[in-house]
Amino acid sequence: MRLTALLFAACLVPIASAQNRYDPIVNPLKAKGLGELGAYKLLQELSGGIGPRLSGSLNAQRAVQWGMETMEEMGLQKIHLVPCEVPHWVRGDVEDLTMADGTKLTCCALGGSIATPEDGLEAEVIEVHSLDEARKLGDKAKGKFIFYNRPFDSSLVNTFAQYGTAGDQRFLGPAVAAKLGAAGALVRSMTGDADDVPHTGATTFEKGGSKVPCVALSIIAANKLSEALKAGPAKVKLTLKCETLPDTPSFDVVGEITGSEKPNEVIVMGGHLDSWDKGRGAHDDGAGVTESLEALRLIKNLGWHPKRTIRVVLFMNEENGGRGAAAYADYAKTANEKHIAAMESDSGGFAPRGFGTSLKKRDIGRVNKWLPALSVFEIDHFTPEGEGGADVDPLAPTKAVIFGLEPESQRYFDYHHSDKDTIDKVNPRELELGALSMATLAWLISEDGL
Amino acid sequence: MRLTALLFAACLVPIASAQNRYDPIVNPLKAKGLGELGAYKLLQELSGGIGPRLSGSLNAQRAVQWGMETMEEMGLQKIHLVPCEVPHWVRGDVEDLTMADGTKLTCCALGGSIATPEDGLEAEVIEVHSLDEARKLGDKAKGKFIFYNRPFDSSLVNTFAQYGTAGDQRFLGPAVAAKLGAAGALVRSMTGDADDVPHTGATTFEKGGSKVPCVALSIIAANKLSEALKAGPAKVKLTLKCETLPDTPSFDVVGEITGSEKPNEVIVMGGHLDSWDKGRGAHDDGAGVTESLEALRLIKNLGWHPKRTIRVVLFMNEENGGRGAAAYADYAKTANEKHIAAMESDSGGFAPRGFGTSLKKRDIGRVNKWLPALSVFEIDHFTPEGEGGADVDPLAPTKAVIFGLEPESQRYFDYHHSDKDTIDKVNPRELELGALSMATLAWLISEDGL
Repeated sequence: MRLTALLFAACLVPIASAQNRYDPIVNPLKAKGLGELGAYKLLQELSGGIGPRLSGSLNAQRAVQWGMETMEEMGLQKIHLVPCEVPHWVRGDVEDLTMADGTKLTCCALGGSIATPEDGLEAEVIEVHSLDEARKLGDKAKGKFIFYNRPFDSSLVNTFAQYGTAGDQRFLGPAVAAKLGAAGALVRSMTGDADDVPHTGATTFEKGGSKVPCVALSIIAANKLSEALKAGPAKVKLTLKCETLPDTPSFDVVGEITGSEKPNEVIVMGGHLDSWDKGRGAHDDGAGVTESLEALRLIKNLGWHPKRTIRVVLFMNEENGGRGAAAYADYAKTANEKHIAAMESDSGGFAPRGFGTSLKKRDIGRVNKWLPALSVFEIDHFTPEGEGGADVDPLAPTKAVIFGLEPESQRYFDYHHSDKDTIDKVNPRELELGALSMATLAWLISEDGL
Repeated sequence: MRLTALLFAACLVPIASAQNRYDPIVNPLKAKGLGELGAYKLLQELSGGIGPRLSGSLNAQRAVQWGMETMEEMGLQKIHLVPCEVPHWVRGDVEDLTMADGTKLTCCALGGSIATPEDGLEAEVIEVHSLDEARKLGDKAKGKFIFYNRPFDSSLVNTFAQYGTAGDQRFLGPAVAAKLGAAGALVRSMTGDADDVPHTGATTFEKGGSKVPCVALSIIAANKLSEALKAGPAKVKLTLKCETLPDTPSFDVVGEITGSEKPNEVIVMGGHLDSWDKGRGAHDDGAGVTESLEALRLIKNLGWHPKRTIRVVLFMNEENGGRGAAAYADYAKTANEKHIAAMESDSGGFAPRGFGTSLKKRDIGRVNKWLPALSVFEIDHFTPEGEGGADVDPLAPTKAVIFGLEPESQRYFDYHHSDKDTIDKVNPRELELGALSMATLAWLISEDGL
């Protein structure tokens, strides 16, 4: 880096601290947040300490306990649990996919998959690139493995758009295969990162419909299998031991700072406590949980008293059921209070760039006026008619304005739902900037209304 | 990550590809760039293959050769070298800093340091937090080590501002120590990352003035030493074997696509070929070199013929002398051509966010009109009266408008000038987005003028 930075620093600093009517809000938040890096400390406990926490698991229970205790230590008010019954899927200790010549293909079961017979399931593979192509196979699919191998569209700049246009293969592909009488489904991992690490995630079967064993292949494995198929028909043998146990009681964890003037007007901030069982749920969604908690911790520890209630909800079971989101939305419908805003962080703990919002384009001025405050944390836009997230979107009927934090997206799907989603991939300052963005937006809504 | 992304994808894609008068430019660039990831392939050769390339070293020579050959393979025009004499400082194989109780403090020599006597230099340490505090020591500094230990100001959001406000300690601290008759200088590394890896960098002594041995301490070592000093006076013994050899001939590497209509109007893009000898110069500044080359490669391979000349300059010796920048600026002064723009990337290969520009605030409309094109690559602003960089700023007298790529800054100083600046810290898509931003801006200037 250039030495001239030294000379220019004198210019940079005054720009960064230019007088601004939001200085009394953002300056203390900034100094405390970036000085203490509290979100990362919480992430060390949740992701580093507890680790993976799939719904129904002992670790998910531990995460609920941790959420309660953390809120108590923070001195939050009205701490309580919202009960929900969650699916309890267990990976099992055998995941093996072998080609006829003995080559191993690195894979992992998709969440919701059934097991194969104990000594495996051998069948021919048919490669397709879309659900439609699979459906058109008709009877040819019977007894075969359907191999969904459409890659991420690299020309899409935002990686969530890449996920969005490839994800139907994982989410619905196995159900389509089951309907066709296929033996199972093999799905190219939902990532653009061409290594040998498979990425799991939920798949859904029709209620009461038939199910098949299904796995995600690493990108290297998917390419290897596709290459083999070019030479002619190929068989693989899949052995999986996963199983679905009975639903298990679990909980959302809720705590707040009750509003001093309008306690019945509620601003929700949240992320999801559960994670996949691969990796340790650092970016997905340890980040959102710890950013939300840290945002409220900062407000509390600065001694600020919000006019409206600011509440953190740590949602359970986002990954494979959304039962926690549904339970909280049910509560919100009947509660004697008005949800005016609901904000979610579930796109990773990277440097924040914007917020998606449910506001229409014509109404975006209602929040754009706050960009001078948010830009201190490098938030430079609200995306109208944008995303909130799976946990706050069900609150739309309450008329709450929905927000979703939009961090830098390029690295997210390198780690997502895989062994690579660990805390060393999270930069403490980037995570804290997310927390600071959420704290600032929540505080402004609390003080100014929306 | 939320499953709803799947549902929302249908909305995201049309937004990203909304009709735009710049589509005929950005769409082919995007598809080719993100499809081929050429910048990363070049970085594998330069940073992965050649490695560290300090001015005067054999590796720096190799990098010049590589630059020429790469331009030839790309089919650039008017490929040539601009000669310059560069400093030739060599680290040597002994860098040892030991406390009286035998504790080792992890350190590395600053570029430009002199050696200690062969059996080391033992002296008491005085800790200070600014150059002024050092100067005020007066005679008390004689024969002591001056220990500059002011940390990065974590409350500054942009890390270049942190570097700017701490960097005088490394850049000028040893010269101040030398003037005071101190034995040497110990400088807290220029990073906010609290680990045991020291970060080197240039220090400058007054011409003809005295010099002292000087090192950067890792943050852990600096904290340890500071802790020890709280208990009372402490001695350390420093042993360094670095030396400065005679200046060495070296070169900038230059190649271009000559303009089809106004060949004498020149747009320069560049980064610096040299790097520090710690790490492998991946972010600093393999990124800028490969982004610049890739930008021109994309334009060339798309078969586009720019109206004005677009030129890549790979500068030598940015890190410890700026001789390459001076040599090219000298050439530009007398050349029978007009430099209309000069663009540098020397802030890392992270996702781009904006461009600094020398344009005044009142003139920013001249480039802001292009934001609809650049925003495709997530460039959302030009910073007026901002930075270009050490290599293009000397071109200001040519009246060229200066630009400096501004990537996401949070991780840069974690790696900068240290063993950690290696290619595994670079995300291929983030790097390519930098190249695409530069290609787009250069092309628009070439076609529309400035």
